[in-house]
Amino acid sequence: MLDKAPDGKMSDLLNALDKALSGGEVERAVDLFQTDCYWRDLVTFTWNIKTMEGKEQVRDMLKARLADTKPSNWKIAEGEDASETDGIIESWIQFETEVARGFGHMRLKDGRIWTLLTTMSELKGHEEPLGFDRPMGAKHGAERNRKTWKEEREAEAAELGYSRQPYCVIVGGGQGGIALGARLRQLNVPTIIVEKNERPGDSWRKRYKSLCLHDPVWYDHLPYLPFPRNWPVFSPKDKIGDWLEMYAKVMELNYWGATECKKASYDQKSREWTVIVQRDGKDVVLKPKQLVLATGMSAKPNIPKFEGMDIFKGDQHHSSQHPGPDKYKKAVVIGSNNSAHDICAALWEAGADVTMVQRSTTHVVKSDSLMELGLASLYSEQAVQSGMTTAKADLIFASLPYKILHEFQIPVYNAIRERDADYYKRLEKAGFLLDYGDDDSGLFMKYLRRGSGYYIDVGASELVANGSIKLKSGVDVKKLTEHSVILTDGTELPADLVVYATGYGSMNGFAADLISREVADKVGKVWGLGSNTIKDPGPWEGEQRNMWKPTQQEGLWFHGGNLHQSRHYSQFLSLQLKARMEGIPTPVYGLQKVHHLS
Amino acid sequence: MLDKAPDGKMSDLLNALDKALSGGEVERAVDLFQTDCYWRDLVTFTWNIKTMEGKEQVRDMLKARLADTKPSNWKIAEGEDASETDGIIESWIQFETEVARGFGHMRLKDGRIWTLLTTMSELKGHEEPLGFDRPMGAKHGAERNRKTWKEEREAEAAELGYSRQPYCVIVGGGQGGIALGARLRQLNVPTIIVEKNERPGDSWRKRYKSLCLHDPVWYDHLPYLPFPRNWPVFSPKDKIGDWLEMYAKVMELNYWGATECKKASYDQKSREWTVIVQRDGKDVVLKPKQLVLATGMSAKPNIPKFEGMDIFKGDQHHSSQHPGPDKYKKAVVIGSNNSAHDICAALWEAGADVTMVQRSTTHVVKSDSLMELGLASLYSEQAVQSGMTTAKADLIFASLPYKILHEFQIPVYNAIRERDADYYKRLEKAGFLLDYGDDDSGLFMKYLRRGSGYYIDVGASELVANGSIKLKSGVDVKKLTEHSVILTDGTELPADLVVYATGYGSMNGFAADLISREVADKVGKVWGLGSNTIKDPGPWEGEQRNMWKPTQQEGLWFHGGNLHQSRHYSQFLSLQLKARMEGIPTPVYGLQKVHHLS
Repeated sequence: MLDKAPDGKMSDLLNALDKALSGGEVERAVDLFQTDCYWRDLVTFTWNIKTMEGKEQVRDMLKARLADTKPSNWKIAEGEDASETDGIIESWIQFETEVARGFGHMRLKDGRIWTLLTTMSELKGHEEPLGFDRPMGAKHGAERNRKTWKEEREAEAAELGYSRQPYCVIVGGGQGGIALGARLRQLNVPTIIVEKNERPGDSWRKRYKSLCLHDPVWYDHLPYLPFPRNWPVFSPKDKIGDWLEMYAKVMELNYWGATECKKASYDQKSREWTVIVQRDGKDVVLKPKQLVLATGMSAKPNIPKFEGMDIFKGDQHHSSQHPGPDKYKKAVVIGSNNSAHDICAALWEAGADVTMVQRSTTHVVKSDSLMELGLASLYSEQAVQSGMTTAKADLIFASLPYKILHEFQIPVYNAIRERDADYYKRLEKAGFLLDYGDDDSGLFMKYLRRGSGYYIDVGASELVANGSIKLKSGVDVKKLTEHSVILTDGTELPADLVVYATGYGSMNGFAADLISREVADKVGKVWGLGSNTIKDPGPWEGEQRNMWKPTQQEGLWFHGGNLHQSRHYSQFLSLQLKARMEGIPTPVYGLQKVHHLS
Repeated sequence: MLDKAPDGKMSDLLNALDKALSGGEVERAVDLFQTDCYWRDLVTFTWNIKTMEGKEQVRDMLKARLADTKPSNWKIAEGEDASETDGIIESWIQFETEVARGFGHMRLKDGRIWTLLTTMSELKGHEEPLGFDRPMGAKHGAERNRKTWKEEREAEAAELGYSRQPYCVIVGGGQGGIALGARLRQLNVPTIIVEKNERPGDSWRKRYKSLCLHDPVWYDHLPYLPFPRNWPVFSPKDKIGDWLEMYAKVMELNYWGATECKKASYDQKSREWTVIVQRDGKDVVLKPKQLVLATGMSAKPNIPKFEGMDIFKGDQHHSSQHPGPDKYKKAVVIGSNNSAHDICAALWEAGADVTMVQRSTTHVVKSDSLMELGLASLYSEQAVQSGMTTAKADLIFASLPYKILHEFQIPVYNAIRERDADYYKRLEKAGFLLDYGDDDSGLFMKYLRRGSGYYIDVGASELVANGSIKLKSGVDVKKLTEHSVILTDGTELPADLVVYATGYGSMNGFAADLISREVADKVGKVWGLGSNTIKDPGPWEGEQRNMWKPTQQEGLWFHGGNLHQSRHYSQFLSLQLKARMEGIPTPVYGLQKVHHLS
């Protein structure tokens, strides 16, 4: 028999919380929390994505939001049991607010709340048409002149953006825009996705030809339509491109490919955007209430300026423009993160002489090690077999407060360093400059803090270690000549190709280009946690800046990230947009302040 | 606590069966069966699709096949329990043969086997790459000149059928060909699907514009990639067309659209087909070992010959060619099954004056009633919610022997007749000639026996009942004039459109056209059970003639049916083809005799 004691303790706590909250007794509720508590709320109480850290912040939030939110019916989630491990009792929970149904996760320490995650599942009266509520498709009965599904789709495509305005425009039709678009379609929010490439998936197809996803399939599912069980672990880029294309089609998205978004401005009075896009050679003016920038972290290539770039006679381009390894004899790749490694390896495979220029330390993890030690408990075939669902994995991950997430990560990377000690030694011996993150917390924290600085090794590191890929580290580029790259240590590298694998500019910069510097400055830096580590300056923010939540610019949103984030956070962004469309009050608690411009 | 007694009884029986079979003791095994027993085998013992009816047939089969098959390890399937209802103990079971793993279902009556279903799950050593065994996608490590996924796909597309021959050619790229092609791809059987329409899904897109599937979504899933939970209950034709197109793409099928299959012949000596197809304006000669005709039951329109068809000045076409209701004023639709009703309703909706000519009785069932009383226990949202999977539903359905299936069906249709008594009265009052099948066993038996003779009512019957669709029943067409149809009772129906909703010719006829009359005659009639009812002459066959199993023509197979059958039987056909490709002995037990030519 299962030990039911954790259930009892959890239920007692939830009953006490329910009673305190429904009675408006903030102090009594706060008393149920540990001193070092964390309450992460995704849209249910705060209409924001926000972590309350410590009892004082919990108290402040409740004082501001309890009366409006009217939470009730806190209980262990249907069909779930609480469990106890190392003195921590945890459980899936459910609850309601006045306008929504919520799902969450709670951890108790010494009988009090240590971590609490509250997320919005659906808005009451605006549930998605799934399962029992799916559409009929055929309309039984008969009526004169009714339209077929195809005629309705064609009419919508002809009208939306022309005779009828979308409520929402998403700029960028990669996985982020597509996942959000799919959810908004289910919520019946009229939306147009604007994408400069012709077809969905092209942003993947156009990358260097050897590219495969570095994240495994279990981490990459889109909403509604998971990959089948025969899908490869690491999708080749063209295959994920095909998947995105068919997904946009069967999910009936209004996807405007080959369309350039030229200019956007917000009218504070009409509370409406004017978005000018070029489609089929003509300017089209869109007037949405909400504008989502889903251009991702790879929208603005970051190209350094070196003396002599204008006289170099070979090919030179940013990694995002790299067509593939064919036809080059002597290549220099500036940079040492994912793209740099992949491109170096592909060039070597194609027979080129290739040198990687490593300008600063890089965090390298073997893909196998990352999968097995970093991801397997939540995202792996083992996890699937043991009953873990994608939705639960996402929520467990979301339940770990950013403030202490690195504490969970450091032991993982320590274990990886131990397991792969020989490997790291060989890389160092080859001159490669390694790091493991400022506080040794590894890859995922680097991703959340700065979105760069690492390579998930799928084979290139061996080529670096054995000298097949030549390495110049701890140097920078001094200048280019007609046929070579000169480094700061005086080395001259003959080259018919220079690849700048030098990363991307911030999404804030994209907002500046599209809207205005003024609005971009008002909104401030996008991404990062304020961890006070390299490229992620403090003060501490508690959540990723400006992502998936209200910004200082009304009606402007940022969406994106990897496939996991595109899937998970599109749920909460779509609910925020839907609530606004339906006129449900959405008072934002704790709108972030701006500490950095870009 | 669950009552474990059924488990014990089932396990005892399985142990006894295991012991008798592994000891080669046929009589002892036969003793474990009821007198009125049924053993339905899908490919595991018989390399055939065959039901043994009664102990004698069980004995004969075991005598012939036991030594080769070497079955073992009979047990209640992992994670399952036996259950008991009304004295019948039933359970999911698993077992092995020398070359395969099997899954099945068993019902015990009075301690002995009443029904036994044995199906092949996979061939040992040739398992599909799913779950833990899925492909990596990215090839970690580095090697010179390796090909990307895209390059490999492009190379395969360029070579297969030209410099390299497919093992299997499937003629017909509807749901049948696509589902089978997907399974063969997973089993690594080189296959080309030849389809005359340009794109996958066109066979649906090109039908009359109001068409929606008459079967509900839970019944229609394709292998590997089920429809998402927001998919409509009854897919509109263009939406299912889009789904099939994307499915063929992401499943990486070698799909030759816009390709006509002109001629096929079999060389008994080389045991190889010569299949001539026209692709891109050029003849291509394919040399597969296996040829699958998956043209479906709707490949050869059945157009009656009436006097005056040559002088009629309006439009006239078969229902499969009907473009849609627009532009017609006075329409006559010959026929009274699904297509006739749908087309009549669409014409009425578009404002036409339309008359249905009902030449013989028709079985009509309201869609709601069919869903709720006929399908809900296996294929419905309720079934999903209560844990029923598509695979299990298919197997439960497969576990009911055809010989007694009508006994399970008659009460369903009796209940429907009672529930909808008023409705049927109103239809009869309007002159509509009803039947419920020869033995009142309803729609599904009609489908299995003759594939025709019914309408699943999604709205047109109301129009017939209230006279909106005019009805002439119990008459036939005498002749056409320039501007009218004259019926045998002398009625003249002015018309600018005549639709022949007169069904389809047999798949045997398609084989005659493509291969030869001689081969078609050797193979005999396709479809039907030999139930000795209208359009399904005896003698009793026990299984559907020639479908998904070996025929009298080596290397020739028939595949198709509705989405349920395309999904379910493609598993067993793909395993038969794979076994042959791998040289696994496949001695066919009980190859059917030919009693009818078409």
